[in-house]
Amino acid sequence: MKLATYKDGTRDGQLVVVSRDLSTAHYATGIATRMQQALDDWGFIAPQLQDLYETLNNGKARHAFPLDPALCMAPLPRAYQRLTGTAYASHATLLGGEDADLVVHQAASDQLLGAQDHVLCANENLGVDFSAEIAVITGDVPMGASADDALEGIRLVMLSNSITLRNVAHPVQNQPAASFSPVAVTLDELGDAWDNGCLHIAVQVAWNGRKVGMCDAGTDMTHHFGQIVAHASKTRALRAGTVVSSGTVSNAGFEKNGKTEWPKGYSCIAEKRAMETALDGKVTTEFMKFADTVRIEAKGKDGQSVFGAIEQELVPLNA
Amino acid sequence: MKLATYKDGTRDGQLVVVSRDLSTAHYATGIATRMQQALDDWGFIAPQLQDLYETLNNGKARHAFPLDPALCMAPLPRAYQRLTGTAYASHATLLGGEDADLVVHQAASDQLLGAQDHVLCANENLGVDFSAEIAVITGDVPMGASADDALEGIRLVMLSNSITLRNVAHPVQNQPAASFSPVAVTLDELGDAWDNGCLHIAVQVAWNGRKVGMCDAGTDMTHHFGQIVAHASKTRALRAGTVVSSGTVSNAGFEKNGKTEWPKGYSCIAEKRAMETALDGKVTTEFMKFADTVRIEAKGKDGQSVFGAIEQELVPLNA
Repeated sequence: MKLATYKDGTRDGQLVVVSRDLSTAHYATGIATRMQQALDDWGFIAPQLQDLYETLNNGKARHAFPLDPALCMAPLPRAYQRLTGTAYASHATLLGGEDADLVVHQAASDQLLGAQDHVLCANENLGVDFSAEIAVITGDVPMGASADDALEGIRLVMLSNSITLRNVAHPVQNQPAASFSPVAVTLDELGDAWDNGCLHIAVQVAWNGRKVGMCDAGTDMTHHFGQIVAHASKTRALRAGTVVSSGTVSNAGFEKNGKTEWPKGYSCIAEKRAMETALDGKVTTEFMKFADTVRIEAKGKDGQSVFGAIEQELVPLNA
Repeated sequence: MKLATYKDGTRDGQLVVVSRDLSTAHYATGIATRMQQALDDWGFIAPQLQDLYETLNNGKARHAFPLDPALCMAPLPRAYQRLTGTAYASHATLLGGEDADLVVHQAASDQLLGAQDHVLCANENLGVDFSAEIAVITGDVPMGASADDALEGIRLVMLSNSITLRNVAHPVQNQPAASFSPVAVTLDELGDAWDNGCLHIAVQVAWNGRKVGMCDAGTDMTHHFGQIVAHASKTRALRAGTVVSSGTVSNAGFEKNGKTEWPKGYSCIAEKRAMETALDGKVTTEFMKFADTVRIEAKGKDGQSVFGAIEQELVPLNA
């Protein structure tokens, strides 16, 4: 099924069920009002949401309304935990990291932005960079879970734009609020595209309307989501509603005429700049400026948008 | 006022108001059921809780009951964000850090442990170390807040035990769930002891019943809570319910006969081991073993416990 959270002026918004084609939605009132509530008691609540989802898809939900992605908060607007992994070794390699080992960090989750919320920044010279990522939301994961067990704990999948300020050295300060696709989907919606903790889908990235990235999120995923979640739960349990981000989706380059080329474009500007350095010896692409836009979307085999699109503009604070 | 959260089998527990002397408590039912609810709408809810607190202190609350710290969850049992700072330069210096600058990191907050909850660990040879810290809970803090503005955003103060696995190199894995005092208190309860973001109070630490630490939390606080919160909110707003930990409370050493001595003991074992290395050239103190206990408490000028005591035992997972 597909779930979203509608803006209603509160910090947690209202849980809605969204039709498979993203055209219509229906409040989950009477089942659960907030996404965290569903995650806290998934075994009991998810089947009821699934029933509503099927009714909605059959055109028989009585109070369905057209889905407006601009009214979507992040599917989970605030989370008790967010973790980010380094799932794509090719991204680390490109950015000069010599270590392809999995590293997982705690990240901010007190405010997760909606798909069309502005990215606010006080200063456009901080090296503002987008990053197209896959993110999952887990249920409870016990301490010491295996990678297989951890996979069983994954409830929902989303797209994410994890903004990084590349010119800011301090941790915390270099990671403003991250943003998420309008819709979060259960694994069964992904069919064959979800395979052993990897999502085999092309992540389309457009910057100021120009297509810049088309990386496949599955092909070169070095550490799958089961491994990332198991890594994070090695010494403590993870509680329901933990958001886990993959890190920048990236494809490995290939050798051509003695040079490495990256044919699928880039999911963050830092990668583009690293490619320029590698190929031309100098950087020509600048980071984002105010009024710049970024669009992130992924389509299924049927050509339909799976999660809806993230479409954001970089806006000065107090503009 | 003093607030706690009572265990009731749910993830968030039940908000209770606690008398100044920690002897009695009263459910806040009818005002707010959960601590996060109070933090989300502090201006409206806090005065009502304060009224109940005064009635309770006057012995006139109708359904008061004796406070049992064993039934306390963390005052905020799960938080949307936790940040840890390096407020005490003497701690960093002692542990070999050459940089006394403020560093702030994201930390886990999906499960914050109660004052008498066991510390669970799969392996006692991971270098299990306690760390006595001061922690605050903030309201909403806007992006770019000054240190003074940030101070205005502090709602509650607690004690914390931030367990670290010193032999584990990976971030996330080396920080199991942190624990908190039974009670969180508002700034007015602290009187003169709260001064410009520093808490001037001796933090008593006992390890297996033996007093090992008596550091003053105010004297050598290099970066006060207003500075830590302002640092963290430089590029993004912090939302209500953000827990901010000071890092290990520490006092500076002094020179005696050409050697540095640390007269107030230690708030984490790593400091003791560093002192041994500095004084004797070798480490003789081991980290915690299963069945070890740690007790952390702070008393006011009147000799009364301000926050109640953290009293924990290290217990093997699946014991």
